Amino acid sequence: MSSIILSINAGSSSVKISVYKTPTQKNTATSTSPSNPDSPSTPSATPIPLAEATIDNLTAPPARLHYTRFPHHRILAQQLPDVSSQEAAFTYILEHLTHDEGLAELNEKADVQFTCHRVVHGGDYARNQVIDKETYENIEALSDLAPLHNAGALSIVKATTTLLPSAKNIAYFDSSFHSTIPPHIHTYPIDPSVARKNKLRKYGFHGISYAFIVDAVATALHKPQDQLNIIALHLGSGASACCIQNGRSLDTSMGLTPLAGLPGATRSGSIDPSLMFHFTHSAGKPSRSSSSTLHITQAEEILNKTSGWKALTGTTDFGKISSSGAEADELAFAIFADRLQNYVAPYFTKLKGEVDALVFAGGIGERGERLRAAVVGDVKCLGFALDAQKNASPGDEVVVDISAEDAKYKTLICKTDEQLQMARGVLEDQRRFAGDAFGI
Amino acid sequence: MSSIILSINAGSSSVKISVYKTPTQKNTATSTSPSNPDSPSTPSATPIPLAEATIDNLTAPPARLHYTRFPHHRILAQQLPDVSSQEAAFTYILEHLTHDEGLAELNEKADVQFTCHRVVHGGDYARNQVIDKETYENIEALSDLAPLHNAGALSIVKATTTLLPSAKNIAYFDSSFHSTIPPHIHTYPIDPSVARKNKLRKYGFHGISYAFIVDAVATALHKPQDQLNIIALHLGSGASACCIQNGRSLDTSMGLTPLAGLPGATRSGSIDPSLMFHFTHSAGKPSRSSSSTLHITQAEEILNKTSGWKALTGTTDFGKISSSGAEADELAFAIFADRLQNYVAPYFTKLKGEVDALVFAGGIGERGERLRAAVVGDVKCLGFALDAQKNASPGDEVVVDISAEDAKYKTLICKTDEQLQMARGVLEDQRRFAGDAFGI
Repeated sequence: MSSIILSINAGSSSVKISVYKTPTQKNTATSTSPSNPDSPSTPSATPIPLAEATIDNLTAPPARLHYTRFPHHRILAQQLPDVSSQEAAFTYILEHLTHDEGLAELNEKADVQFTCHRVVHGGDYARNQVIDKETYENIEALSDLAPLHNAGALSIVKATTTLLPSAKNIAYFDSSFHSTIPPHIHTYPIDPSVARKNKLRKYGFHGISYAFIVDAVATALHKPQDQLNIIALHLGSGASACCIQNGRSLDTSMGLTPLAGLPGATRSGSIDPSLMFHFTHSAGKPSRSSSSTLHITQAEEILNKTSGWKALTGTTDFGKISSSGAEADELAFAIFADRLQNYVAPYFTKLKGEVDALVFAGGIGERGERLRAAVVGDVKCLGFALDAQKNASPGDEVVVDISAEDAKYKTLICKTDEQLQMARGVLEDQRRFAGDAFGI
Repeated sequence: MSSIILSINAGSSSVKISVYKTPTQKNTATSTSPSNPDSPSTPSATPIPLAEATIDNLTAPPARLHYTRFPHHRILAQQLPDVSSQEAAFTYILEHLTHDEGLAELNEKADVQFTCHRVVHGGDYARNQVIDKETYENIEALSDLAPLHNAGALSIVKATTTLLPSAKNIAYFDSSFHSTIPPHIHTYPIDPSVARKNKLRKYGFHGISYAFIVDAVATALHKPQDQLNIIALHLGSGASACCIQNGRSLDTSMGLTPLAGLPGATRSGSIDPSLMFHFTHSAGKPSRSSSSTLHITQAEEILNKTSGWKALTGTTDFGKISSSGAEADELAFAIFADRLQNYVAPYFTKLKGEVDALVFAGGIGERGERLRAAVVGDVKCLGFALDAQKNASPGDEVVVDISAEDAKYKTLICKTDEQLQMARGVLEDQRRFAGDAFGI
């Protein structure tokens, strides 16, 4: 039997699964990424990536399969007319993996020893959890706080227990990394008794990514993680900022839910809290996505699904917005840069100016040359500056320094990898608990 | 007939009226404040203050009258059991003024030439407006955007037309000062067609105060107003921050309504926009304050009236919160300082570090020694520092420098005066239009 780890990342319209093999003892302490075997090593054990499968377009059918078996086998955008839910996508990928003859390590479902599930909202869970009946019910209950965000992952967790009965299921929460945020930052100025009862506080998200970023940047800068101070920006179709002091989250832009903070592809980010009541008089009424178990208001649906730069420009493609020159696109670009400045600057002062780096990550963080230039330009007076050439061609390293030579503070790009971060967590936990906690 | 100006400031629970005399030609260009006749002069004409009357406790009866006729006549907290509305308070004060034999300049209602009304929400009005039938209807229509904030002023405007038929009524809007905020800052990332139709954008408030601050600080620093760059904090039971570049508003913390941004005495400030839907399932339902003409949701009432530090600590008295040492008070204090940092730091970078001063104003800004120390301490790495002695005993000047000698940037306290700012506006307009616009 192989020791296969599946890292599962269910988005609202996609399912991505990375397949890893547990390394044998002699190769546990290696690089931060498979693409960069020569970078400085970390103490983290590194799972060996075998394959990666994504099914996207679940909400814009037909769904499509993208598959890579490392190093060279690829399937691109194969249409799957019969797949239309996260659960169906998971089932399809599992069949595909076990039937891929080139993937000798995963011939039968029993080869899967661990499944890692990215769960957006973990409430007060300060770390990953093995999913037993109790944990599952807790996560399900938490879904009331983030019905739009947890549902996909939960349907796959449920499917896993049937399809992979011998695997250990572990939930990784995007909120856990932020459990270190102090009360004066995570408390909302509202009735404390209601806040306690309804669990209303700033949680923060993208934490699996931020944990990866801390690990990778500390390694690249040759600093212990617990001495690393960075301003990290995870910028994708969902975007957030995080103030990281001594390797721990001190503040972040998202809040009770991923809606707060920066705007995103279809998300408004922070707006006047009264705005929705002037947007539609039925703001508080249940949306179409509501069900008997999940309560979603029209307001939440509008602000999460039909706002953001899609609403302003008609596209969710920030690359297009950054380059078209169209008036609406320029406005959306300028709005995003402005709101980013609103987080970068106070995170600089919260770190008392003792900042190791400003770090760009996520799809837009990695590819947004113009956005990086705009954001760094906006905080030039603090001591940040880019090398235009490095910003234009940062290359493929996990962590790339794009700062100007005379910049007081570094600016980095980090290719974050949530799947890898989760798979690493499995190996770390295995080591930490010497197998006991997982019964292995 | 005297030329009396009444500056009227109707809060949610109080009415404050300042009585000014139009200066004769020879004393038009004097000081920024009656209490400081030797400060550097501005080109603004300065009305001569005669008296000041406030009725408070309108929502916590019995109402009380406080009255000062300059320089020495005072009435303190005289109970008025029969006064329970803004309109009744206005009527009472008007009777009191015309019957005060020591106030020779205001013997009959016809002595009042101008009434200035502070109106919180002025929509797109970029400057003050003489209130005729059309303007009144426009302001009334705007009240749907800020029903909790405009209603008091409107009831007094209405009373004025009956009680003072010969006076010219002028509306001063808290939002006008912010009409210079550029689109990428005032646009919300939401459906632009709904935003246009429902007039949903960042407006900003406290603008009458910010206009006073610009005038006073420019005078104190001997700079032209159109070259003044400051970070201004108006901190009272409602609190906001403003980034002022070349004397004009570039950004501010309040938004569509005064709810957004900083927390206040009973106001949450910015929170996750989904929070209310997890606070109460009836968030979108009409509140007790709703009427057939004004639509106020339960959410807006909760977030504006029963949140903020009152909810956290049980008191609206920030002086008590700052000094009691109680755990809940310390938390509320730390929350306020943290949220202030979230605006001071980006306003510093928006001014590209070219900052003439960080300015504290409003009741808490003037009296909050510990808060000023906390906020300035939080942005020490930018180059701000206080002189502890000056911060502890700033004295009575309109503008006081409390910076440490070696601070890179100045920190000031400004005694803002919205009534005076409105009365000055009357004189400026008189001069500008040579009397024509007002028919005088």
